Amino acid sequence: MSDARQYFNLPSPFAMKRGGSLHGARIAYETWGSLNAARDNAVLILTGLSPSAHAASNAHDPSHGWWEGMLGPGKAIDTNRWFVICVNSLGSDKGSTCPASLDPATGEPYRLSFPDLSLEDVANAAHGLVKSLGIEQLACLIGCSMGGMSALGYMVLHPNSVRTHISVDTAPQAQPFAIAIRSLQREAIRLDADWNGGQYDDERYPDIGMSIARKLGVITYRSAMEWNGRFARIRLDPEQREEQPFGFEFQVESYLESHARRFVRTFDPNSYLYLSRASDWFDIAEYGNGSVLEGLKHIRIEQALVIGVSTDILFPLEQQEQIAEGLEAAGAKVEFVALDSPQGHDAFLVDIENYSRAIGGFLARL
Amino acid sequence: MSDARQYFNLPSPFAMKRGGSLHGARIAYETWGSLNAARDNAVLILTGLSPSAHAASNAHDPSHGWWEGMLGPGKAIDTNRWFVICVNSLGSDKGSTCPASLDPATGEPYRLSFPDLSLEDVANAAHGLVKSLGIEQLACLIGCSMGGMSALGYMVLHPNSVRTHISVDTAPQAQPFAIAIRSLQREAIRLDADWNGGQYDDERYPDIGMSIARKLGVITYRSAMEWNGRFARIRLDPEQREEQPFGFEFQVESYLESHARRFVRTFDPNSYLYLSRASDWFDIAEYGNGSVLEGLKHIRIEQALVIGVSTDILFPLEQQEQIAEGLEAAGAKVEFVALDSPQGHDAFLVDIENYSRAIGGFLARL
Repeated sequence: MSDARQYFNLPSPFAMKRGGSLHGARIAYETWGSLNAARDNAVLILTGLSPSAHAASNAHDPSHGWWEGMLGPGKAIDTNRWFVICVNSLGSDKGSTCPASLDPATGEPYRLSFPDLSLEDVANAAHGLVKSLGIEQLACLIGCSMGGMSALGYMVLHPNSVRTHISVDTAPQAQPFAIAIRSLQREAIRLDADWNGGQYDDERYPDIGMSIARKLGVITYRSAMEWNGRFARIRLDPEQREEQPFGFEFQVESYLESHARRFVRTFDPNSYLYLSRASDWFDIAEYGNGSVLEGLKHIRIEQALVIGVSTDILFPLEQQEQIAEGLEAAGAKVEFVALDSPQGHDAFLVDIENYSRAIGGFLARL
Repeated sequence: MSDARQYFNLPSPFAMKRGGSLHGARIAYETWGSLNAARDNAVLILTGLSPSAHAASNAHDPSHGWWEGMLGPGKAIDTNRWFVICVNSLGSDKGSTCPASLDPATGEPYRLSFPDLSLEDVANAAHGLVKSLGIEQLACLIGCSMGGMSALGYMVLHPNSVRTHISVDTAPQAQPFAIAIRSLQREAIRLDADWNGGQYDDERYPDIGMSIARKLGVITYRSAMEWNGRFARIRLDPEQREEQPFGFEFQVESYLESHARRFVRTFDPNSYLYLSRASDWFDIAEYGNGSVLEGLKHIRIEQALVIGVSTDILFPLEQQEQIAEGLEAAGAKVEFVALDSPQGHDAFLVDIENYSRAIGGFLARL
């Protein structure tokens, strides 16, 4: 199986928002469908913190992608009609230049010498790719979770580069509850002695910090309501329990553990720290003299679909309402969809039926 | 200043619900007001996981207590009328026998040889104290947070021992979201190498695990809504920031840090683990063939006040509704008060005005 990833070499040096620059950097991306002659059928997807560019299976890589149910021929994001691009965020370790990459100046991994990363850098890198494909204006820019914040940055920094926008389970700025959660995730990693100031290796690796960070993530990505129905107070069978004091006893505990095991050692801890902090830093109000609404008013697009879910504790529905209000105030025709999916923030990855209806309906009407 | 604490020696051996027993164990308690001749004006308070028996200042200890605003002459729990007792939970290290106490059989601290602790044990120890004071029936049993679960255990195990009940921000059973949070707190402690299987000392102490556990606690004890108003995205002054990679930058981060610093080394880690797990284990449905409602129906009291708050993510309002329904189905006259205090689970410690009105009103009408 050949690698489905393609790579876009960023202009070198690539200047970062908060100072510093990258030399010889690249981002990984995948595509589905075909760009039409007018080059006006492109849809760009910006992802959450951890997914790769492999949003769905394709000829080069038939494995299921992270948004498999949403993307493909005849699906909500219909690749018979749209030329779909998904990028791996700059700073993520799924093929893009990140803190684990070699710094060409030293031949060693950047680690903490990687420059400060912001979501605007993620957006600028993606915009460079889109331009390089000869696309002047995206038919639609889709951003999920962290990618929704990157998308707002993309639109505010690159006027007229986007015709329509779909905002999924995201926020116009990081609020203190989300900052507190992410700060604690970062602390679990950096206080793990095996993080070692970013100088870990395969032998000495911050497994415990990453595991705690991931579990805390999963707790905030889902919802109490879902878990009441799914796990209730079901115990593990005695042979599944941990043979340790205070070891796992309830199903919900082994669910978290299996999520953590799938994550640890598959995501670079320093990259996680950089992307996590970039999320905390994001604030569209920076572009509106401290006002979220004024910041959003700089975004000029024709139409938008803004989706959120009432059970999301990390990106609460009020924040999607703010995005919808701001884009409308800026002149866009906005559809706002508030779902009651029980799955919390992750509903966009799970409740494919409702998200498909909203996203598929919006795109079909374009 | 003399110690305000009094001690009640538990019958020896004191049998524990899940097996094992304690020898020579005691619980610490404090009292306010005077027991009347009929011995029918006693109010017992069962606490959350971490508070001591020092609910309010008194002649022996004028320092502020954890419920200072609620308890005293002329206050909601009026000590001119009521003889108020607050106990430190069995297993807590604020004067009661706990895993840090010396095992008389060995002369060494129990640590993990302490028997399994359940909230029913906490309840039974408190009930023993009440009986020893010559009180056949409490005028009112008040339980806050974890103490609310202990109180349900108290009433189901000791019929006719309670006339009325006030249930504050609690639950009839631990649900998976709360279990997940507490499991992760315990994991942060037990995966801290300095926990050392419970064999820590002052030199080698699980500061990091306890700090992470406490911060996660504070995050779930408060609410996103409160923090939006209180912290928003306010940065620390440069001189307040940590001189470390990914160090604290936002006010909400230093707020969590100061909470953690006040907690670490003031609460025994093993005691924390035992009490935390006891909370996960609690399930009133055990007394009702798997049904919460049937379990609650075994509780025979005259009246109850059940209070919860809509912003509580750890003990959601639906769980207080269950308690209210169950007690009503059992024949009690029940007042249910759903508050909109922004402070989340901790509202009972902060929103003294609204909790005073509800609790003071209920007690005044008895």
